[in-house]
Amino acid sequence: MKIVASQIELETGEGIALHNLMADIKREVLDAGVNNGFVTVTSQHTTTAITINEYEDRLLEDMRIFLQRLIPPSDHYLHNDIELRDCPPDEPENAHSHLAAMLLGSSEVIPLVAGELVLGQYQSVILCELDGPRRRRVSIQVYGE
Amino acid sequence: MKIVASQIELETGEGIALHNLMADIKREVLDAGVNNGFVTVTSQHTTTAITINEYEDRLLEDMRIFLQRLIPPSDHYLHNDIELRDCPPDEPENAHSHLAAMLLGSSEVIPLVAGELVLGQYQSVILCELDGPRRRRVSIQVYGE
Amino acid sequence: MKIVASQIELETGEGIALHNLMADIKREVLDAGVNNGFVTVTSQHTTTAITINEYEDRLLEDMRIFLQRLIPPSDHYLHNDIELRDCPPDEPENAHSHLAAMLLGSSEVIPLVAGELVLGQYQSVILCELDGPRRRRVSIQVYGE
Repeated sequence: MKIVASQIELETGEGIALHNLMADIKREVLDAGVNNGFVTVTSQHTTTAITINEYEDRLLEDMRIFLQRLIPPSDHYLHNDIELRDCPPDEPENAHSHLAAMLLGSSEVIPLVAGELVLGQYQSVILCELDGPRRRRVSIQVYGE
Repeated sequence: MKIVASQIELETGEGIALHNLMADIKREVLDAGVNNGFVTVTSQHTTTAITINEYEDRLLEDMRIFLQRLIPPSDHYLHNDIELRDCPPDEPENAHSHLAAMLLGSSEVIPLVAGELVLGQYQSVILCELDGPRRRRVSIQVYGE
Repeated sequence: MKIVASQIELETGEGIALHNLMADIKREVLDAGVNNGFVTVTSQHTTTAITINEYEDRLLEDMRIFLQRLIPPSDHYLHNDIELRDCPPDEPENAHSHLAAMLLGSSEVIPLVAGELVLGQYQSVILCELDGPRRRRVSIQVYGE
């Protein structure tokens, strides 16, 4: 069984920004030369998440609006009292981004059969930036034969 | 290492409907003849999700009520302005279903040890239909020895 | 390919309590002697979840407050009408804990490259107790070479 590990880096958008990872994932699968197995996609940050859904502009905007209403950035959060924490004074006030990341989850698994990712017609693997813009890393691992 | 890929299809219930996948998953594990490894269960739609929890009627109804209150179908969503999107005019107005799917997640991994799924006594793997009724596909992949 | 299955047990805190699993996971990876592959961490209960985020005291308290506001334990839930269910009369009234578990998810996958877990600097794998205190089991499986 082959295990091919790779990382991609990307510059994300402002605030909550959703980035389509499909081109990167398909390239890594092709480069790995694996036909049957699975792919893991994991974010390496605590204010990003990985989700699978339709990459449609108006839906992405609905998601941004929904998350901002569910976890308002302007609410008071203990994590944002930077002066009360043992950390550098320039830490961002981003508790809402952490909470959204926990709800959305930071890993997804996609089966790989006969060289194709097992995803529905409208499914895209999406990096959810929740505190952008930043330079971010996503791990794409391909396992199989 | 063996990799056995399968898909099941099912007709789902109205609106939000939770379907127990345990019988299907156990059958696929048995058919695969794998004793140690893991199983991935992934939904192939953008308005369904996979979750693991107790399959108890009144709790399932609590989940339906909770999701409808958290993401009201009657709210305005940009994705539901079908006439403003580049898509067929008969697309369903189901933004709330997509948002719920993103929160719940579309894949779960279950370890397999000595022929048994590593799940607690009350845990069932559940397909969450979020915009039913529809004909749906779920992928069950078994990996191991 | 090696598959090393293990379980840890821990006594959790009161109500919603977040427990850092990193020391346990690192020990299991070391004991397994696997350098490249992946680790699955799965909870075996319907009122716990696994998440990956920053293990910072004030953020953990924000998470507790957020979940209690999102899914108030004092609301009425059908699952809590114990006398209307076919179950022992001393079942806990914990529907809110089940709902939170479904939102947070019960499995995470972490790639393993050159003996190291592929996690960002601030990422910790966390067991979310949602109905503590209890004695809980978490499965840690290590797969690879």
